[in-house]
Amino acid sequence: MSLRRTVKVVGLGALALTLSVEWLDWLRRRLRWWRRGRQGPLKEVLFFPTAITCVEHLYTPDPRINSPCPCPCPLPHGLETSFTRLLRHLLSAAASLDLCVFAFSSQELGRAVLLLQGRGVAVRVLTDRDYMRITGSQIGALRSAGICVRHEMGAVHMHHKFAVVDGRRLITGSLNWTLTAIQSNKENILVTEEPDLVLPFIGEFQQLWDANDPARHYPRATPPSDTLALPRETAPSV
Amino acid sequence: MSLRRTVKVVGLGALALTLSVEWLDWLRRRLRWWRRGRQGPLKEVLFFPTAITCVEHLYTPDPRINSPCPCPCPLPHGLETSFTRLLRHLLSAAASLDLCVFAFSSQELGRAVLLLQGRGVAVRVLTDRDYMRITGSQIGALRSAGICVRHEMGAVHMHHKFAVVDGRRLITGSLNWTLTAIQSNKENILVTEEPDLVLPFIGEFQQLWDANDPARHYPRATPPSDTLALPRETAPSV
Repeated sequence: MSLRRTVKVVGLGALALTLSVEWLDWLRRRLRWWRRGRQGPLKEVLFFPTAITCVEHLYTPDPRINSPCPCPCPLPHGLETSFTRLLRHLLSAAASLDLCVFAFSSQELGRAVLLLQGRGVAVRVLTDRDYMRITGSQIGALRSAGICVRHEMGAVHMHHKFAVVDGRRLITGSLNWTLTAIQSNKENILVTEEPDLVLPFIGEFQQLWDANDPARHYPRATPPSDTLALPRETAPSV
Repeated sequence: MSLRRTVKVVGLGALALTLSVEWLDWLRRRLRWWRRGRQGPLKEVLFFPTAITCVEHLYTPDPRINSPCPCPCPLPHGLETSFTRLLRHLLSAAASLDLCVFAFSSQELGRAVLLLQGRGVAVRVLTDRDYMRITGSQIGALRSAGICVRHEMGAVHMHHKFAVVDGRRLITGSLNWTLTAIQSNKENILVTEEPDLVLPFIGEFQQLWDANDPARHYPRATPPSDTLALPRETAPSV
């Protein structure tokens, strides 16, 4: 074989090898992108009722949040349930929580919202005028803690049950934030970060928030009533 | 240029051209797939209350379903609202409709379900034991038409409000199937064909359907009570 031919064969071989390596690398990256693309943003469905377990460890600021807690209570520990998933999503809030819920009487969820407020998360709560007075309602406690709460001003029910965490994670479904809903009823919650689903809810929250601004309805009242403490009253249960 | 060299150049040119065309075609298909992949499965959010419009044209089997109907009623015609979108999604059922709803008293939605039954769509309805007796409940009419209806057998509320159309389209949210919910309340509905969201609801429906089989609870009763007509009773409204 002449030297010229040898050089040509070796050169072409090297070129083919380089191209193959490049192509394989491209294919690898493409497959990884495709897999990630297929998974897409967070999507999770939770069903209730849920088993009653200890959730104490979820409220601690311990970074090892998944480690079993040393809580001495008699409830089962270390179990992941629909409710612990809901609490984890809620407590993941780092900047804001917009909550739009018809009935809110769950003490555990109330505690979570107060904890977020204590951590400096900007919390806004929209609720129903009649159902904010149900037995055990958490609305009074939230208002007392300085959380801005507004309620539906019209003669209709604000029947939504959704939350938007950090402006990107939507929690929505049939579940009112009550103990009955969590521990007894057949309910569902859907958690997603799919922008096509989250953005409309952000818009709906802002529209309802603005529409139910007390300053619009009682322009002469001072101070604005949406941060005042609400007397705990008893109303029909959910 | 020698003949051999000419043949070589022409051959390589033809090969390069073929590869370029192949590559461009592949790129075109890839771009189209990528665009479709980015859009993903159906995702739609609907908010209520909705404007009251004529929906007569949606019930007709006319393929020109989007054309203005000649209905002489005084309601606005030809408007697309959250309710017409909901009806369209529902009436798109070609094979099956699994409906799991707490309160069902909307005549229009009842008419749609009966229409689907008449078209041969396999309809199954799961509902709440107490709320199936609310004023204007459609459950009796559905059972009278031969639709298989089951209700929660336990002493808890079946509080879901979702439907699965043709085993692939999920309609879920806060909205009960009542006139008050549609025309007065602040409500939401989410419609999606995202498998990660639809499949858990299909599983939940089947699990609840099996768990509330009358044959399990009343094994000696004949005929099975889930196709019997329910007497129209009056119960507290939603």
